[in-house]
Amino acid sequence: MESLNNKRGFASDNNAGVHPEILKEIISANEGHVVGYGDDRYTRKAQDLFRQHLGSDAEVYFVFTGTAANTLGLTGVTRSWNSVITAHTAHIQQDECGAPEKYTGCKVLTVDTPDGKISPSLLMRHVHGFGFEHHSQPKVISITQTTEMGTVYSVDEIKALAAFAHDYGMLLHMDGARIANAAVYLNLPFREFTTDAGVDFLSFGGTKNGMMYGEAVCFLKPELSPDFKYIRKQGMQLSSKMRYISAQYLAYFRDDLWKRNASHANAMAQILAQKIKDIPGIRITQQVQSNGVFAIIPHDVAETLMKSYFFYSWDELTSEYRLMTSWDTTAEDIEDFIRLLRELMLKRA
Amino acid sequence: MESLNNKRGFASDNNAGVHPEILKEIISANEGHVVGYGDDRYTRKAQDLFRQHLGSDAEVYFVFTGTAANTLGLTGVTRSWNSVITAHTAHIQQDECGAPEKYTGCKVLTVDTPDGKISPSLLMRHVHGFGFEHHSQPKVISITQTTEMGTVYSVDEIKALAAFAHDYGMLLHMDGARIANAAVYLNLPFREFTTDAGVDFLSFGGTKNGMMYGEAVCFLKPELSPDFKYIRKQGMQLSSKMRYISAQYLAYFRDDLWKRNASHANAMAQILAQKIKDIPGIRITQQVQSNGVFAIIPHDVAETLMKSYFFYSWDELTSEYRLMTSWDTTAEDIEDFIRLLRELMLKRA
Amino acid sequence: MESLNNKRGFASDNNAGVHPEILKEIISANEGHVVGYGDDRYTRKAQDLFRQHLGSDAEVYFVFTGTAANTLGLTGVTRSWNSVITAHTAHIQQDECGAPEKYTGCKVLTVDTPDGKISPSLLMRHVHGFGFEHHSQPKVISITQTTEMGTVYSVDEIKALAAFAHDYGMLLHMDGARIANAAVYLNLPFREFTTDAGVDFLSFGGTKNGMMYGEAVCFLKPELSPDFKYIRKQGMQLSSKMRYISAQYLAYFRDDLWKRNASHANAMAQILAQKIKDIPGIRITQQVQSNGVFAIIPHDVAETLMKSYFFYSWDELTSEYRLMTSWDTTAEDIEDFIRLLRELMLKRA
Amino acid sequence: MESLNNKRGFASDNNAGVHPEILKEIISANEGHVVGYGDDRYTRKAQDLFRQHLGSDAEVYFVFTGTAANTLGLTGVTRSWNSVITAHTAHIQQDECGAPEKYTGCKVLTVDTPDGKISPSLLMRHVHGFGFEHHSQPKVISITQTTEMGTVYSVDEIKALAAFAHDYGMLLHMDGARIANAAVYLNLPFREFTTDAGVDFLSFGGTKNGMMYGEAVCFLKPELSPDFKYIRKQGMQLSSKMRYISAQYLAYFRDDLWKRNASHANAMAQILAQKIKDIPGIRITQQVQSNGVFAIIPHDVAETLMKSYFFYSWDELTSEYRLMTSWDTTAEDIEDFIRLLRELMLKRA
Repeated sequence: MESLNNKRGFASDNNAGVHPEILKEIISANEGHVVGYGDDRYTRKAQDLFRQHLGSDAEVYFVFTGTAANTLGLTGVTRSWNSVITAHTAHIQQDECGAPEKYTGCKVLTVDTPDGKISPSLLMRHVHGFGFEHHSQPKVISITQTTEMGTVYSVDEIKALAAFAHDYGMLLHMDGARIANAAVYLNLPFREFTTDAGVDFLSFGGTKNGMMYGEAVCFLKPELSPDFKYIRKQGMQLSSKMRYISAQYLAYFRDDLWKRNASHANAMAQILAQKIKDIPGIRITQQVQSNGVFAIIPHDVAETLMKSYFFYSWDELTSEYRLMTSWDTTAEDIEDFIRLLRELMLKRA
Repeated sequence: MESLNNKRGFASDNNAGVHPEILKEIISANEGHVVGYGDDRYTRKAQDLFRQHLGSDAEVYFVFTGTAANTLGLTGVTRSWNSVITAHTAHIQQDECGAPEKYTGCKVLTVDTPDGKISPSLLMRHVHGFGFEHHSQPKVISITQTTEMGTVYSVDEIKALAAFAHDYGMLLHMDGARIANAAVYLNLPFREFTTDAGVDFLSFGGTKNGMMYGEAVCFLKPELSPDFKYIRKQGMQLSSKMRYISAQYLAYFRDDLWKRNASHANAMAQILAQKIKDIPGIRITQQVQSNGVFAIIPHDVAETLMKSYFFYSWDELTSEYRLMTSWDTTAEDIEDFIRLLRELMLKRA
Repeated sequence: MESLNNKRGFASDNNAGVHPEILKEIISANEGHVVGYGDDRYTRKAQDLFRQHLGSDAEVYFVFTGTAANTLGLTGVTRSWNSVITAHTAHIQQDECGAPEKYTGCKVLTVDTPDGKISPSLLMRHVHGFGFEHHSQPKVISITQTTEMGTVYSVDEIKALAAFAHDYGMLLHMDGARIANAAVYLNLPFREFTTDAGVDFLSFGGTKNGMMYGEAVCFLKPELSPDFKYIRKQGMQLSSKMRYISAQYLAYFRDDLWKRNASHANAMAQILAQKIKDIPGIRITQQVQSNGVFAIIPHDVAETLMKSYFFYSWDELTSEYRLMTSWDTTAEDIEDFIRLLRELMLKRA
Repeated sequence: MESLNNKRGFASDNNAGVHPEILKEIISANEGHVVGYGDDRYTRKAQDLFRQHLGSDAEVYFVFTGTAANTLGLTGVTRSWNSVITAHTAHIQQDECGAPEKYTGCKVLTVDTPDGKISPSLLMRHVHGFGFEHHSQPKVISITQTTEMGTVYSVDEIKALAAFAHDYGMLLHMDGARIANAAVYLNLPFREFTTDAGVDFLSFGGTKNGMMYGEAVCFLKPELSPDFKYIRKQGMQLSSKMRYISAQYLAYFRDDLWKRNASHANAMAQILAQKIKDIPGIRITQQVQSNGVFAIIPHDVAETLMKSYFFYSWDELTSEYRLMTSWDTTAEDIEDFIRLLRELMLKRA
């Protein structure tokens, strides 16, 4: 795709760059010497901000990637004979090259869902065998908020999953790679659909919403993972110059940058979806609740379109494609994309 | 150490910040959309630069940290029944919380050295049992250049180790977290003491020499690790916004920034060592060949000194301390530090 | 169940003891000194016998348990970034406490089946993402013969799975914990539905068919796992006094003891099933093709029955139970069991 | 060595066969059906016997091999960021193909010893860095009793190591592959130099002393490893027909068979050593405290001798050889061996 040098497209929110306010904060932190590995005031301040958003019990550890946040978070609360239950479409199942299994040793069990969202009734088939040493012991239910299909769990749905998990002595994990987009959709503070809804631990992501790198493993209840500092270091995820991750979060939470970015991306997705709906022959397949639009587009049209605006195929079989908006998507990008799409569909008809 | 807000000290070269030319390049790369995970022109260009410095066969993969570069590099060439032989003082032995064992499954065998440098004769005790299934099969010899003791292997020493390794069907690994400081000391291009000296794979570090984050796993010979892309992803070390690591290396190699930084740090260490030598009662314990100075300092003096200039104890028993200079150490820092040290020693006498 | 001291039941074929011919051979091997760890003539002879049954390319390694045979066999042909596809009901998925994930690091993917048997069309959903580093790379299809549901794959079904696997560069694994019962049902030599049908590697079990301990990992094609001797030793599965496993196999293959045992167990299951079918209110749920009978029995009846003849619940929800016959089940055992069951059902009616 | 068909030699105590009383008990247990996986009266009785010998708090789990007992025992009390400290000569370091590292993820640290025995002062160099996340956290000190050099720790030596371990919040592990030989040498009940001396967990071996297979992981204090049943199953070490391991231990403890066997082997080693000492030109290198004799024998002599009586080279460099006696070594074996050795030495002189 190098012909599209730095042109904005709809491939992924992590193809977008870094928000200027984030960069500015990095520059501002770039002064003199600071003790390495997180024992610094930038990091302490950033952790304080997380506690303001997630509750005072939150233990917050920065790592580099979302895959690491999920995998090490799971490591923190499991032993290798446990199992983790999630949706078939979950990032930990489809897109982490088996990092959770390799690192935790656990079995990952999945359920099929129409929209990326799991529910207690779907999970029942995997929740058994407790105390039976031949069977991996179920320990974690993992949900993605927002899901890989762009849908968002309601507070009640999360509460039901948390109650279900806790009834069985299990924990509820949230992969929040796009948690800001969910907060905007729900129009709720983070805390209301995480800590207060019963989530036990959380991968809090910023990279897909305007940061450069650095995600947070957040244990929302006390004593969930007292040895996590060793897990992070042994997991190759302890940054020596930690201040540059922490500084990004200082900017991310200042003046609700996270909300401004996610609101914009979500709004752009709504516009994109609205305009696509008006084009005959294209069908949107999932509810648009965040910054992703899933649509069935004729294969030949999609292929041509991709030369101008890069995006990914989601399901080759059904000719379903995924279009992602981001913090820097413009109304003009959408106008132009829709114009092209409309032309291609007309030519075809 | 928060009372010393951002004051430069001698604790570690990774306590220093990011060189302005690096930051400038990051900002310059922050434009529009770029395909994620390394499939971008910044990354390709950075990899080209590595090949210019290390030889055209070099396969270069960026990861986040030095621990990851070492651990995943080792994963790339070993199976779990192998062993890795290194110095007792090596970073992989002392400072990675067991990441190599946890991730590779291999046994790490060590030898004692006076100065952090291993040699074939020291290694002999571990090189046996080939083909004997009860015994971990020796596969990698790992050296650190510059060593954790601030010393530097000569080209001949490296060649001897490479020949020894290859005679036994083993590979030679170099942990180059401070490789620039070694290149400056040896006054040689990287290639002459790595690829051309027989090193098989290399962890190439930049963070300790003015970068923000991002190290490189470099396989210097063809086909050493054909599946490494999966190892990096499963190892949680594939950056989504890779361009920001790559951009740093573009700046790092431009106008020999790496050399300017390392030359400065090395020169500062020479001055520091020279001035310390002149103080009665302090003894320097290792040859100063890079940016570290190891010295026996009376415990009470060191404790007081640390309140003004942070640095680390190396050996509590012998009252040995480590002083590190960095790319931003100034002559004034040293003057002031020496003045204080001298005063404290005088008071004591 | 201690009240039923050593009474034969229908709980599991591994509750049965050791066939006298096996014991006799163990005693016969118990003479003088023999080099340990498999470098002995008993082991060489046993391996020769395996090659007679499986083809001259077969590499045969004895381990202690079926879980070990499966897990180490998979370790021998995979790397941690691979995935293994199997039935939801497979032993490696349900009954090995996650040993395959912990030890191989691989992802285990499953498909639902009505009868424990997978087919290419069911597997399609998991066979994609080749070369895409974010996705675990599919490498092994694993089938159980006979399945955990007592059903048996035909030669054609196995050939189709092998062709499918090989088309995608994958391998076909067979968990043969009850392979003898399948051979008897198919009335074929082992080779025709393993090596000749395209199976790449095999866990060959004997413990459920009259042996004491000791299963075999069999690589059926050359060079599949050249380093397996290290895998077995590091996997804690190398027996020091190997001759006692090997001797068991000498007896197992002599005069087709394996066939006599399995034929008896299968025949007993047919009788059991036939008699159960005649009892109103009991429904057999799977085809009886080996030594297992699955039936829906009223919960209260089953509970009472278990006090006299121990057996296991298969599915609490549907009140499905599993009855296993073994090499030592007698016609009288069945008569008596059926009499009791019939009485209990009558009382209930 | 196949020319020496079943001839007794001095290669290893695991080249010997199974004591008739053990075999007899196996046969006696081979009656009817018994619930699998250890839920049976043979196993409960065997565990009771262990508790009589080791104290009422002992939790006892049978596994197949000594490597498994060591590796899974360590797994039971560590997390992957821990380290285990042992002698350079220890079985876990030299002879388990890296099983402890692969399975526990821990770092194994070693110290050099003259006689296979470690002591607190030797360990000091590895016991530091507590709470420092960069450093593997020391957790276990592992000793072998009797050592791989045939020497035996006194009760006081063990107490000192236990006190040292506990002072640092660490645990003391004993690899008791030859624990019976130590008990005989010390002339003490097992308990006095294990549980009562402060040992926390123990690998209790029987295979080298007349059993067929089956070792025991013994946690000597309550709550040391509450989840061990999952560790054993996931570790591929849960025997389905457990009664046959348990029965062996019933015989092993009956009428002190363990003591009779070990006393005999130790006595044979004393005779062997005494006679060797009388031969000019041979030097015994270690104190003979159990059933091993270590001696410097001219290389050519040893090579010729091995053709009649197989034994192993211990150190090629120094021409040191290891001679092991076993429960079935006869005075005639020794006479004949010594006669041959004497002849060869005379010829040479």
